[in-house]
Amino acid sequence: MSMRVKENVFLGRERRTLSLGARGAALGLALAGAVFAAGCAPQPKVPEAQNAAGEVADLSRIPQNLALFAAKAGLNAPLRSDAAAAEDMRKFHRSFFAPWTSGRLSRNTLREFEAVLNWAPGKRGYAENLRPWSDAAWMSMCDNASLDTVSGQGRAAIVTQHADLRLAPTARPRFARVEGAGQGWPFDDFQQSSLHVGMPLMVYHTSRDGAWLLVQSPVAWGWVEAGSVAFVDEAFRSLWETSPLGCVVRDDVSLKASGAFLALADIGTVLPVSGTSVLVPVRGVNGQASAVSAPVSAGEVLPMPQRLTPQAVAAIGDRMMGKSYGWGGMYGNRDCSAMMRDLFASFGIWLPRNSAAQAKAGEFHSLENMSVREKIEAISRGAEPFRTLLWLPGHIGLYVGQFEGEPVFFHDIWGIRNRLGDGREGRVILGRAVVTGVKPGSERRDVDAKGLLIERMRGYTILGGR
Amino acid sequence: MSMRVKENVFLGRERRTLSLGARGAALGLALAGAVFAAGCAPQPKVPEAQNAAGEVADLSRIPQNLALFAAKAGLNAPLRSDAAAAEDMRKFHRSFFAPWTSGRLSRNTLREFEAVLNWAPGKRGYAENLRPWSDAAWMSMCDNASLDTVSGQGRAAIVTQHADLRLAPTARPRFARVEGAGQGWPFDDFQQSSLHVGMPLMVYHTSRDGAWLLVQSPVAWGWVEAGSVAFVDEAFRSLWETSPLGCVVRDDVSLKASGAFLALADIGTVLPVSGTSVLVPVRGVNGQASAVSAPVSAGEVLPMPQRLTPQAVAAIGDRMMGKSYGWGGMYGNRDCSAMMRDLFASFGIWLPRNSAAQAKAGEFHSLENMSVREKIEAISRGAEPFRTLLWLPGHIGLYVGQFEGEPVFFHDIWGIRNRLGDGREGRVILGRAVVTGVKPGSERRDVDAKGLLIERMRGYTILGGR
Repeated sequence: MSMRVKENVFLGRERRTLSLGARGAALGLALAGAVFAAGCAPQPKVPEAQNAAGEVADLSRIPQNLALFAAKAGLNAPLRSDAAAAEDMRKFHRSFFAPWTSGRLSRNTLREFEAVLNWAPGKRGYAENLRPWSDAAWMSMCDNASLDTVSGQGRAAIVTQHADLRLAPTARPRFARVEGAGQGWPFDDFQQSSLHVGMPLMVYHTSRDGAWLLVQSPVAWGWVEAGSVAFVDEAFRSLWETSPLGCVVRDDVSLKASGAFLALADIGTVLPVSGTSVLVPVRGVNGQASAVSAPVSAGEVLPMPQRLTPQAVAAIGDRMMGKSYGWGGMYGNRDCSAMMRDLFASFGIWLPRNSAAQAKAGEFHSLENMSVREKIEAISRGAEPFRTLLWLPGHIGLYVGQFEGEPVFFHDIWGIRNRLGDGREGRVILGRAVVTGVKPGSERRDVDAKGLLIERMRGYTILGGR
Repeated sequence: MSMRVKENVFLGRERRTLSLGARGAALGLALAGAVFAAGCAPQPKVPEAQNAAGEVADLSRIPQNLALFAAKAGLNAPLRSDAAAAEDMRKFHRSFFAPWTSGRLSRNTLREFEAVLNWAPGKRGYAENLRPWSDAAWMSMCDNASLDTVSGQGRAAIVTQHADLRLAPTARPRFARVEGAGQGWPFDDFQQSSLHVGMPLMVYHTSRDGAWLLVQSPVAWGWVEAGSVAFVDEAFRSLWETSPLGCVVRDDVSLKASGAFLALADIGTVLPVSGTSVLVPVRGVNGQASAVSAPVSAGEVLPMPQRLTPQAVAAIGDRMMGKSYGWGGMYGNRDCSAMMRDLFASFGIWLPRNSAAQAKAGEFHSLENMSVREKIEAISRGAEPFRTLLWLPGHIGLYVGQFEGEPVFFHDIWGIRNRLGDGREGRVILGRAVVTGVKPGSERRDVDAKGLLIERMRGYTILGGR
C-alpha cells in the first residue's frame, strides 16, 4: 500500500507527512510534494506575519561577531583581579546552592501560587486550542495541585534533565490574548524559566498525581515535572557542595556514561568537574539521584571561575549568536536575561532571573532624566566593554564597545515595536541573539522614534568585582 | 525587596510573573495585577483570532453527552460476538507488537527521513521564533541526525514516558507558514504523533548526541527523545508479549510504585495487567527497561478486550468530551484520528494513525457521487451507532446515532472553514472533542455551504468483527 496522504488542512487538520505503518508499508510523504527541490533556493521572504516582518539595518551594518569587538577591547586584558574573581565565585556558589541551604517556603510564596490557580474564569486567558481555558481543564489542574495539603517541609533534590519551570502544574500554555503584537504563542504566561541539569532544588510539595513538584530553584520558584528531578541524600549533597565546579561553555553538550545517554547540557550548566569528566545527576527508578561520571571533550566544560577577559566572554557569546529567542527558556532557547545569566556563569558571576534584578546585580549607573545624546555619551564614557549590561525595563544586553561612534550591544530580542500598514501595532521580529546599536530600526519609517531602545534605556550596570 | 515587575512586552519580551530569588525574597506577581478578581466573571469573548472566532449552533443544540446517545442505541446491546472480539484482539496484539516482531528499516523509509533533512534552504519553513529556520540551526540538526551512519540493525525498546514522535530530531517546530488559517502554531509539521507509555519500539538509529532515536512504533516511524525510551532484553520482551493486556480508560492516571512517581497514562495506554496492578516500563540509569508493578484504582484500567457496547464506548468518549484538540498529539492532547484510536483500544480494535487509513480499517461504505441528501440517507440507513467511523479526507469521527433526523458524530476538530470580514479565509475554532451533526456551522453566514463536512464526506466504516 503506497499512497500520498494530503491531509485536509481545512478541517480537523490532522497531521500529515511521513507515516509508516506497523507493517513497514511506506505511506507517502505528503509534505514533501513541493519541497523536495534541491540546490540552494533563497530563504523564504519573511511574510507580513501575525506580528510583523522585516529586518533592521543594524544587523547588516554591524558585524554579528563579538570576537571583532573583543579585539578592540583588548583580547586578553583581565577585567578583574584574582581576588575579585574568588569573591565573585563565593557569591555564585552561595546563590547556586541557596535552595539547599537557606530556602524556605514562606506563606507569601505559597499565596502567590494559590492566587494563580484562583484566577476567576474570565481571567484565565487562552489555552493551547486558542480558546478560553475550559472550566473543566482549569479545575482539574487546581485539584491536582492540591495546594491545601502543602506541609512546608522541604526535600533536597536536583535537576536531572533540562526542565521548564512553570507557574502552574501543567505543560499547557496560558496566553493572555491570542492575537496582537507580542501576544499569543510563544508568549505562554505559565512559562517561568528553564532549569539546567545539575541545579539544586528544594521540593516543597508534590501534585496529587505525582507528576509535578513545587520547587525553589536558584533562579525562581515554580512547578517542574517530576520526571526531570531526583531527590538527593546527605552524601550526594555534600559531594556536590564540596566539589570544584565547572561550567559548560558550548550548547548541546552530550553527557553519556558507557555509551548510555544521560542528558544534554547547554552553556551555563554548572556541574562538579574532575579532570576531563563531570558528575551528572541521574534519576533512578526509585526517584533518587545518583552521581554518574561522564567524560567531556576539550573546551566543552571549563573550571570555574574562568578568567574574565573580552576574548573569553566573546568566545561564549559568539556560540550564542543568531540562535533563536526563547520566551522564558522555551524550547531550551534563551531570552534576554537568560542569555546574560548563561554568558556570565562560567566566570562565576551569578545573575538573577530577570532584567530588572540583573540591573541591580552590579555597579548601577542611572541614565534617568537624560536626553538620547546624553545617554549615549554616558554609556560611551562609563560602560566597560564585555562586563557592562545595558538595561531598559523588560530588556537587557551586554555592552561590547563602539561602532561608528555609537554604543553597541549583544542581546537576545524578540522584536522592535512598529506600526503595521493597517494602523495596528506590530513587531519587526528579530527573534534571536544579535549585535545592534542602541536604536535598531531607527531607519524604518514604521518605527516610531519614541519607541527606540535608547529612549527607554534607564541605566547600565558594571558586573563583577574589580 | 518587594517589587512589581511588569516586564516590557514591546521589546525583548522577557517573561514576567512570579519570581522568587535565591534568598527567598518575594518579588511581585506582575501578571496578577489585573487578574486577582474573585467570583465568576463570564468567560472572555473569543476574539477575532488569528484564524477565526465564534461558535457553531450544533454545540448548544445537540447534547454534548454520549451517554444519551448510547441509551438510544441500546446501552448494553453487544455490538459483536465473543468470537469476533477474540479475533479483533488477536489483530490488535499483532499490530501493537509489530515493531518487535515484523519490523525492518527499509531503504525507502530511510530515504524519506533523509529527504526531510535535505529540504532546500527556501523550503524549510519557519522556526520557533517565527522566522525562517536558520541555516546554522538546520545544518546542526542534520549533522546531529547523522543518517549516513545508519546500520539498519534494530534494537528492541519501549516507551517509558508519553513521548512525541517527530519527523526530525528536534523538539523545535517547523511551520510551513506563520500566518493564515490553519497555519503557524500549533501546526508544527515535525509533529508526527504521540506515543503512549508501554508501546513497543524498534530503535534503528541514534543521533550523534545520543538524545534522539529513530524508531518504528506501532503507529508510525519517527524520531523520539532518548530519555523517554528504554531498551528491553529477551526476558522483558517475552513478559510483555505473553502477559494479559489491560487498557487505561481514564486520562491522567498516575502510575506510582512505593510512592515514587513513574509515569502518567492516558486513555488508550496498553500495559500488562494482573489483578489491580499494571506493569510499567521504567528507564534505568543504564538506559535499560525494568518492569515495575504499579497499583491502579478501580475503573482506571480494564482487561482487554472490553465488551463492545454503546454504553462502554460512550463511557470512555464522555471522558474525552470537550478536551482540547492537539495537532499530532501535542501537549498530550488528541487530534481526530488519535481520539478514535484511543477510544477503541480497550475493545481490542486497532486503528492506524491517520484518518484515511482508519477508513480502511473496517467495512468501508463509499458515499462518492451522492448528493448531500443521499449521503445522509445512506449513513442513517447503514451506519451502526458507536462502531462506525464517518470519514472525509483529513477528518474522522464516530457516528453515535440520529438527532432531529440528522446523523450525529463525536469528533475532535480544530475548526470550520469560514470567510473573515476582510475576505481572508479563517476558521471557526472549535478546538476540542465535540458532538455535532454532519454540517456544523451551516447556520453561519460566513460559512460556505460547499465547505460543510457532509459535502466532503466520502464514506463510512464499520469497525470490528460481527
